[in-house]
Amino acid sequence: MDFIKTPIKGMRDCLPGDMKLRQSVIDMIRETYTRYGFTEIETPAMEHIENLTNKQGGENEKLIFRILKRGQSLEEALAEGKNELADSGLRYDLTVPLARYYANNVSSLPMPFKSLQIGSVWRADNPQKGRFRQFTQCDIDIIGENSILAEIELIAATSDMLTRIFSRIGISGFTVHVSDRNILRAMAAYAGFSEEDFSTVFIILDKFDKIGLDGVENELKKNGYPEDAVRKYVDIFKTPAKDTARETCGFMLGSFLDEKYADGLDTIISCVRGMVAEGVNVVFDPTLVRGMSYYTGTIFECTIDDYHFAIAGGGRYDKMIGKYSGVDVSACGFSIGFERIITILSDHMDPNAPASKDGVAYLIHQDTPAETVLRVFREAQEKRREGKTVTVQGMRKNLKRQIDDLALGGYGSVVRVYKDYSGS
Amino acid sequence: MDFIKTPIKGMRDCLPGDMKLRQSVIDMIRETYTRYGFTEIETPAMEHIENLTNKQGGENEKLIFRILKRGQSLEEALAEGKNELADSGLRYDLTVPLARYYANNVSSLPMPFKSLQIGSVWRADNPQKGRFRQFTQCDIDIIGENSILAEIELIAATSDMLTRIFSRIGISGFTVHVSDRNILRAMAAYAGFSEEDFSTVFIILDKFDKIGLDGVENELKKNGYPEDAVRKYVDIFKTPAKDTARETCGFMLGSFLDEKYADGLDTIISCVRGMVAEGVNVVFDPTLVRGMSYYTGTIFECTIDDYHFAIAGGGRYDKMIGKYSGVDVSACGFSIGFERIITILSDHMDPNAPASKDGVAYLIHQDTPAETVLRVFREAQEKRREGKTVTVQGMRKNLKRQIDDLALGGYGSVVRVYKDYSGS
Repeated sequence: MDFIKTPIKGMRDCLPGDMKLRQSVIDMIRETYTRYGFTEIETPAMEHIENLTNKQGGENEKLIFRILKRGQSLEEALAEGKNELADSGLRYDLTVPLARYYANNVSSLPMPFKSLQIGSVWRADNPQKGRFRQFTQCDIDIIGENSILAEIELIAATSDMLTRIFSRIGISGFTVHVSDRNILRAMAAYAGFSEEDFSTVFIILDKFDKIGLDGVENELKKNGYPEDAVRKYVDIFKTPAKDTARETCGFMLGSFLDEKYADGLDTIISCVRGMVAEGVNVVFDPTLVRGMSYYTGTIFECTIDDYHFAIAGGGRYDKMIGKYSGVDVSACGFSIGFERIITILSDHMDPNAPASKDGVAYLIHQDTPAETVLRVFREAQEKRREGKTVTVQGMRKNLKRQIDDLALGGYGSVVRVYKDYSGS
Repeated sequence: MDFIKTPIKGMRDCLPGDMKLRQSVIDMIRETYTRYGFTEIETPAMEHIENLTNKQGGENEKLIFRILKRGQSLEEALAEGKNELADSGLRYDLTVPLARYYANNVSSLPMPFKSLQIGSVWRADNPQKGRFRQFTQCDIDIIGENSILAEIELIAATSDMLTRIFSRIGISGFTVHVSDRNILRAMAAYAGFSEEDFSTVFIILDKFDKIGLDGVENELKKNGYPEDAVRKYVDIFKTPAKDTARETCGFMLGSFLDEKYADGLDTIISCVRGMVAEGVNVVFDPTLVRGMSYYTGTIFECTIDDYHFAIAGGGRYDKMIGKYSGVDVSACGFSIGFERIITILSDHMDPNAPASKDGVAYLIHQDTPAETVLRVFREAQEKRREGKTVTVQGMRKNLKRQIDDLALGGYGSVVRVYKDYSGS
C-alpha cells in the first residue's frame, strides 16, 4: 500500500500561519470567557454510539464517523450479519458530550455550572468551500441557572469576545438578535396556525433572511395553509418592531402570550445594551427562529454586515440535558462559529504581512569551530531570556532562499556566523 | 437505547481543575518552544488507513481505532466479505501525521522546518492507572537540518521548558541522557555480536534501568549468545564513563567507531551544558537505547528522580520521512511525555488549594428589580475590564452550598444582592 500525502477527504493540514491566527483567537476566547466565570472542560473525541444516535441530534446523526468494534465483538457483529459494526463514533457536536459529562460529573460540579468547551467535531458532510469534515467548535453553557441572568451573562460575554476579536481588523459593529420560542409560538397561534404545523411554519420563516417576506408568504401558501392565517402571520412582520418586546407584542399579550416572556426579553436586552461596547446593536428580532428543535425559551444569534451567516447562535434548552441524561436541569448556551470567525478575520488580513519581524536567526557556517558554536548558543539563550524568538540553523548552500524563508517567518535580523565570528 | 453517562472505556472527562493545570502546561510549552523558533502545526485526527498500517508504527499498528467506510463503499466491502471495512483510523502518534504533512506541504514550509505539535492521539491499549486510550502528545521536530545544531536546539529548548514547568513544584533537577545509535552499534560490534543480533541485544540492554547489569548479563546468556561476547559487552558498562564520549569510547575509536560520532556527541553535550539551568545534568549515557527502530543517530531522553519513566525522549531519524513519504530529508525530534508531566505535577500539588481567591461573585435574589440587576451587571463589567473574574448568578435556596462552591472555584468575594442593594 502506498503512502498517501493528502489529508483525508474534507480535512485539512494547518500551516504555521493559519495555526497562529487560530491559536490567537482561541487564546482570546479563553481569556474573555474566563473573566466571565466560565471554566473550561474537555471530553473525549469519541462517544458511545447509543448516545450519538438517540434522535436528538437531528440531521447530524446521519453524518457520524463510526468507529469499528474490535476483536471478538467485531467478529460476533460480522457473524450475526447485523449492521451494528460500530460501538462508538466521533462526536458531531459539543452538546451531546456536555449532557453526558454533566450527568457523569454532576456531584463534582458547582451549581450553576458555567462551562467552556473548545474542541474538534467531525461530520461526514459533503465538503465544500469553507466546510470541513473536522472543524473546531466553541460552546459556552450555563447549567442550573433558570433565570434570565444566564442569558445576560452568555450574550454579554460573547459580545465582549466578538468586540475584542473584530477590533483586530477594524470592525466595531455587529448585531445581536434576541427572541423567545414562546413569542415565536404565540405569533403562529395568533395567526391561526394549528400547533402541529408550527415546526413547518418555523422552518419557512427561518428562510426570511434569504427569501424575504414575500418568499415566506409564497412558501406558506404553497404548503396549503389557510390564506387567512398566512396573511395575518405576514402582517405581523410587516409592522415595524417597536422599542420593546412588550410594545411590539402588545397585540398578543395576555391572550396568546404570557407577558413575562416579553418582559424577560426586554430586561435581557436592556441589561445587555448597558454592558456592550459601542457599535454592538442588541435587538428584538421576531423573525429569529434558530433551527434546533430543543430550544425551549430565549433564542439569540449574532450577525455581522457583509456576511450572510450567523457568527454565533444559542438559546435556552431546559429539557434537553434531562432527556439525554436523566438529570433534569435548566440550561442555556451559546455556540460560537469559530471557523466562520476565522474566515472573516482571514478575509480582512494581509496574508503576507508577518505579525512581527522581531525574530533573530543565527546561520552557522559548517566550518565554525565548536567553541564559537557554543558562544553563539549562549548569545541566543540570552536573547531568548529577554523574550525574543531566536533560531540557530546551519547555513545552507541556497543562502538566499534561507534568508527569504526566515524573513517570511518573522526573522528580521539574520546573523551569519563564520569561523571568525566575534559576537553580534 | 439508553443514554450512557460514563465516557468510552479507557477515556476520561476533564474536570475544570484538571483542565486548568493541563492548559497552563500547554501554554508554557507553547511559549517556550516559540521562543526557540518552533512553529505550531495541526493535522486531522484521522489518517488514511494505508498510512497507519505500513509497518513503520510497530506495536501501535495493532491498537488503531478504525473508522468505518460509509455508504456504497461499506456495502461493497461487506459484500466482498474482505476485512477492509475501514478506510481510515485515528492517529496513534504525531510522527506519521508529521511525515504526511511534510510531504504534502513541503513547498510552503521553510527549510529547515521547526515544527511543534500538541494534540490527542488514540490507542486501543489495555487501560490501566495513568494510561488512557486518548491522551495528549507533544512533539517538536526539526526537519532538514542535518548538523548537530538540531540536537542542541531540541535538547536546550526541552530542558528550558522542563525547568520552567518543574519550578512550579520546587523541582530544579533532572537528567538529560544522550547517546548515539552508532555508538550503541559499535559497542555491540566490538563485543563480538553479529549484526543480525543487534536488535535483540539492544532490547535486552534497554532493560538496564529495571534489571541492572547482572540482569542484562543473565538475559544475554539465556539467549545463547557467546559467553565471550557477553562478558566483553558487560565489561564496557562496568567501566565508569569518563568526562567525554571521546574518552569513554576511546577503546573503539578508529576501529569500530568513527570518531566524528564521539566528537559530535561531546559538542552537543558541552553546548547544552552551557545553556541549561543549574540542576540540569547532561550526560553521555552508553546504556541508552530508545525503543523505536527508526532512529539513525543521536538519541536522548530526560528522567527525573523518584520516577522510573522517561519524561521526554527523542533522537535523529534521518531516513523515516523519506521512507514514509518519498521526500528524503534529515529529521530530528523530541517527544514530550505530556501526560507524565501532568502526573508529576499533580503528585506535588495540593488539589484543594485554588490558585487564587480573586474572583468576585454577585448573587442576585429573585425579587431584585430590573434596574438594580442592570446596575449589578454594569458593576461586574467594570471589574471584568480591570481583568478580574466575575460571575453573576441567581441566589439559590441552598445559599451555603452555593457559597462553598464559589469558594472552591476561586471566588473569595461574594456580594449578595437584595432589592435594597446600593452598590459594593
